[in-house]
Amino acid sequence: MTTDRRSGLDLDLGGRCSAIAYGWTRRTFAAREGRDGAVSTRLNASFSSLVELGGRQVGITSDGVGTKVELAERTGAYGTLGYDLVAMVADDLAANGFEPTNLTNILDVDRLDERVVDELMRGLAQAAGAAGIALAGGEIAELGARVGGWGEGMHFNWCATAIGVLAPGLTRPIDGSSCAPGDAVVAIGEKGLRSNGFSWARMVLAATLGERWHESRCAADGRTWGEALLTPSIVCCPLVTALAAKGLVPHGIAHVTGGGIPDKLGRVLKVHGLGARIDRPFSAPPFMAELQRLARAPASQVWRQWNMGHAMLLVVGAEDASRVVSLAEGAGFGAQVAGTIEAEPVIRIRDGQEEVAFPVR
Amino acid sequence: MTTDRRSGLDLDLGGRCSAIAYGWTRRTFAAREGRDGAVSTRLNASFSSLVELGGRQVGITSDGVGTKVELAERTGAYGTLGYDLVAMVADDLAANGFEPTNLTNILDVDRLDERVVDELMRGLAQAAGAAGIALAGGEIAELGARVGGWGEGMHFNWCATAIGVLAPGLTRPIDGSSCAPGDAVVAIGEKGLRSNGFSWARMVLAATLGERWHESRCAADGRTWGEALLTPSIVCCPLVTALAAKGLVPHGIAHVTGGGIPDKLGRVLKVHGLGARIDRPFSAPPFMAELQRLARAPASQVWRQWNMGHAMLLVVGAEDASRVVSLAEGAGFGAQVAGTIEAEPVIRIRDGQEEVAFPVR
Repeated sequence: MTTDRRSGLDLDLGGRCSAIAYGWTRRTFAAREGRDGAVSTRLNASFSSLVELGGRQVGITSDGVGTKVELAERTGAYGTLGYDLVAMVADDLAANGFEPTNLTNILDVDRLDERVVDELMRGLAQAAGAAGIALAGGEIAELGARVGGWGEGMHFNWCATAIGVLAPGLTRPIDGSSCAPGDAVVAIGEKGLRSNGFSWARMVLAATLGERWHESRCAADGRTWGEALLTPSIVCCPLVTALAAKGLVPHGIAHVTGGGIPDKLGRVLKVHGLGARIDRPFSAPPFMAELQRLARAPASQVWRQWNMGHAMLLVVGAEDASRVVSLAEGAGFGAQVAGTIEAEPVIRIRDGQEEVAFPVR
Repeated sequence: MTTDRRSGLDLDLGGRCSAIAYGWTRRTFAAREGRDGAVSTRLNASFSSLVELGGRQVGITSDGVGTKVELAERTGAYGTLGYDLVAMVADDLAANGFEPTNLTNILDVDRLDERVVDELMRGLAQAAGAAGIALAGGEIAELGARVGGWGEGMHFNWCATAIGVLAPGLTRPIDGSSCAPGDAVVAIGEKGLRSNGFSWARMVLAATLGERWHESRCAADGRTWGEALLTPSIVCCPLVTALAAKGLVPHGIAHVTGGGIPDKLGRVLKVHGLGARIDRPFSAPPFMAELQRLARAPASQVWRQWNMGHAMLLVVGAEDASRVVSLAEGAGFGAQVAGTIEAEPVIRIRDGQEEVAFPVR
């Protein structure tokens, strides 16, 4: 059993529990074989599932915003968490080539506060609009002491399920199987932590700045640490749809969430046992670089915890890379060619003067 | 503001928050109008949403098992909650004429216990199998102190989203619009509380039996109160599909969850401002009758909190009622003709020698 002492989470136990859950899930596929609801095993390594409905390939995925909620509780700002919730599920679908169409959400609360519910749902509706998604219902569950959190306000946990159809021009999902050595890796920039790596970030900040760390100003940033960590996620799914519509279908897409680039790009590349050299990553946003400094941790640890300024990595044909960058920039995203796919199953990332290597397995 | 002092929940605040959430949800429908993901407003009064995907009408709904989780924590028996989770979402879909095809689940935990995860997921897989549903992914989120519960074990909250297609023979969802005076109400029996009314049940039992009420035996039942309250939900969706396949499409279906028959049958009947006379309801299961006795509450209160032995009410043509009952009994469900649809917008329920009346509004 390996305990990740930095984040306080037992990663092996988490992996074992996920495997248990998937084992039981897998046994239910037979119930719909050959008819509506048939689940494809094609996306086994992905976070979306592929379901056949009336001959259409439909993507479905579920996730939540995790402990980022504590940042809303600490700052009293609830209006942007909806962007995180939409990004977590919609961009997991987009990473497999699905255009997200609908989203349902479940808000578990200890007790209700109308103002907070209003701000959360307004943000969710705005984020859904930005993503081209229609909300299709939801549930608010009052669970009393089953839900806890920071401070005195309404505490909550928030999760969602999104469904979608194949993006225009696609006849099957994107699963990394068409990645090849020589492909370019186009990075889409991120300004915040998205909705991952908060356990460690909070631990680092509490250890160096004390319990009310969110009120301290980040020297590199000008904002409070609370504001910096609350930075809403960039929603990438419309970009994937736009690329597909122009015939620029990525060969593989890594949505950079838990486990960072090593885990999420690794999942895409392991389909064919490939690797990548990321020699021109984005610079981490100033607050994230400062967080790295405060953590006094090796780069290998940091890149596995935080996205370091990357929302998505698009693996595209080398000949398409500059058009993909232009189209992304034209749509308002930060984008640059960050590296290349290589035959050796290792992800090498340049971190300042250093190079950090992560085996793909 | 009306506080429901019996359950400790502020029902008006809950209603206002749901209205706020729906208001924001409604504004996002424009994002998909006329294309994949278009949300129909036809099912406004229902718990399923209707979405168009590739010309197919797809149902989607989300819900959780609420505070019934505490019963698993109190008894240490985790294997049946999956039936409650499947029933909550699958039978909401079935109530609108959808055959549920797939389900995703999100398990929020404070910390992980492999054995508990295994039991929960085994039960979920079994329940999905019973419902003819293929699980299509899920998420386990470790949220530390954001999740609480009873006793020392792993605490968790559990929710799901289900999708489905129109049941065979249906060309549009069931929404109550074809109910008419003279229709029969066929009740499908339930042996437990399903996943609703637990706040009040726990309050009543704690007040009369003390904090460890789950260990006391229910005189009328032989089981402990913990075992009785944990009774798994009956999953009705395969019955609705089977009825539709035989051409016996119900005119309206009430899935009896929160708010009981008055609320759930009321939602179906208010489409045309109809009422019902339920003069032959099921007898409440012995433990529920005993709970009613302990609660010392008027019948009007009890019927709004608990299902009193009813999982679903099917509104069918009077001429079809006996075939529906036979088919349900043949499939292993308890079923009986329980009443009739009437023109006056009142639901009248016989409770022993009494009759309780609930206006439909």
